[in-house]
Amino acid sequence: MPIGVFDSGVGGLTVMKEITRLLPEENILYLGDTARVPYGTRSPGTVIRYSIENTLFLTSKRIKLLVVACNTSSSVSLKQLREKFPIPVIGVVGPGARAAVAVTKVKKVAVIGTETTINSGSYEKAIKEIDASVKITGVACPLFVPLIEEGWLDGDVVRLTAEKYLSQIKGNGADTLVLGCTHYPMIKDIIADAVGIGLIDSAVETAKEVKHVLGDGNMLRQSKKEGSRKFFVTDAPEKFARTGERFLGEKISNISKIYLGG
Amino acid sequence: MPIGVFDSGVGGLTVMKEITRLLPEENILYLGDTARVPYGTRSPGTVIRYSIENTLFLTSKRIKLLVVACNTSSSVSLKQLREKFPIPVIGVVGPGARAAVAVTKVKKVAVIGTETTINSGSYEKAIKEIDASVKITGVACPLFVPLIEEGWLDGDVVRLTAEKYLSQIKGNGADTLVLGCTHYPMIKDIIADAVGIGLIDSAVETAKEVKHVLGDGNMLRQSKKEGSRKFFVTDAPEKFARTGERFLGEKISNISKIYLGG
Repeated sequence: MPIGVFDSGVGGLTVMKEITRLLPEENILYLGDTARVPYGTRSPGTVIRYSIENTLFLTSKRIKLLVVACNTSSSVSLKQLREKFPIPVIGVVGPGARAAVAVTKVKKVAVIGTETTINSGSYEKAIKEIDASVKITGVACPLFVPLIEEGWLDGDVVRLTAEKYLSQIKGNGADTLVLGCTHYPMIKDIIADAVGIGLIDSAVETAKEVKHVLGDGNMLRQSKKEGSRKFFVTDAPEKFARTGERFLGEKISNISKIYLGG
Repeated sequence: MPIGVFDSGVGGLTVMKEITRLLPEENILYLGDTARVPYGTRSPGTVIRYSIENTLFLTSKRIKLLVVACNTSSSVSLKQLREKFPIPVIGVVGPGARAAVAVTKVKKVAVIGTETTINSGSYEKAIKEIDASVKITGVACPLFVPLIEEGWLDGDVVRLTAEKYLSQIKGNGADTLVLGCTHYPMIKDIIADAVGIGLIDSAVETAKEVKHVLGDGNMLRQSKKEGSRKFFVTDAPEKFARTGERFLGEKISNISKIYLGG
């Protein structure tokens, strides 16, 4: 049975990339809800509804484990998904939070993400549950996603935008910055330059968590052959393939357009 | 009976602002489809479906005329809306195109808008129908909408972004630039500085068209009292009010959240 992964669009492909790197033999179904992207500016109630609809679709394909490869959805809908669906559900917030606590020496962590992710306080809650003494600063960076989707991954505009958003973090004493949005690894170097502290990439941490959970549950695929990949989108498959290849780092074929509402 | 206006979000408020300036006594219902914003990156089929659903809602409120205050929707769905609904339907593309043809002296016009608007070739078609000898250059500027919604209406980032997008227009000989997106009037001065030619604001032209059509049909409201304004959104009403006030130039109250799909 395959692993199911969903995101609002192409961002979750950075998570899928890390999963295929760590577990190349696994079969993966990826759903990008491109008819309703972006999630990061929508209300929590709406994001929860979308997340349930996405999961209903993926579970109808009989997946063994769900990865919510979207920080916004992971921030607000994980509880509802775990209550509703009888398979392991892994979000990107928990793994990122755990890595941040393990790494910070001064017990000060900064988090960047979409408006809804930052307003939800999900990283703060996840980090405080592990170590209540860690201090957290959250900064919403709404322009990073459109800049990255436009392909402006370098140059003055993205550099100045990063400096403007991250000036609040630089110099506030944090030694660790969590990339709380699956798009952000695409401009990792720009962010690192602007902020000057260590970064946590939730995509890498999430892939490790997937491997642990599948291993513990004796659910790893027993095969040496590379697994299959299949993609579903709710709008504009050609555009998804074009933009998505930059995120996944390999060719995207085998796409179907489906209707989920929206 | 009121005038109905819809847009994917807050952008159409720049059109509503011009309508209320010209026709202050008219009652207006405004629908912002904030659960499904942005339209400018979605496929034409999806935008047509959204536009029909929006119009079904507004016509259920017994409007006398519909303004499609969204360039993307005006570009792809006007024909379907006119076939389906027995009221006058005014888009923003036609009025902008007519004004551009009237103003250009060198018969070279440039148009900026969202990806879907520019790819649709709607302005090119509308302009060629009036004067086939006019040459048109279209440039998609996907980052303007998120920049404007973030409130970065001035400063280095928006200035450099405008210069990057508009360098293709500057020096290609056009003397007239159509702002083919209802958000763009918010950064009119930045765009004018970057491009150095005359601008056409579709919002102003569309308001004039509304006045003509209502006058010709003997449908103008016969009252000296200021008309009522009522707002509907499909998600996040508080955010709509907060962002929208900058676009409308006055306080936004009387908002209801409705569900249309999405």
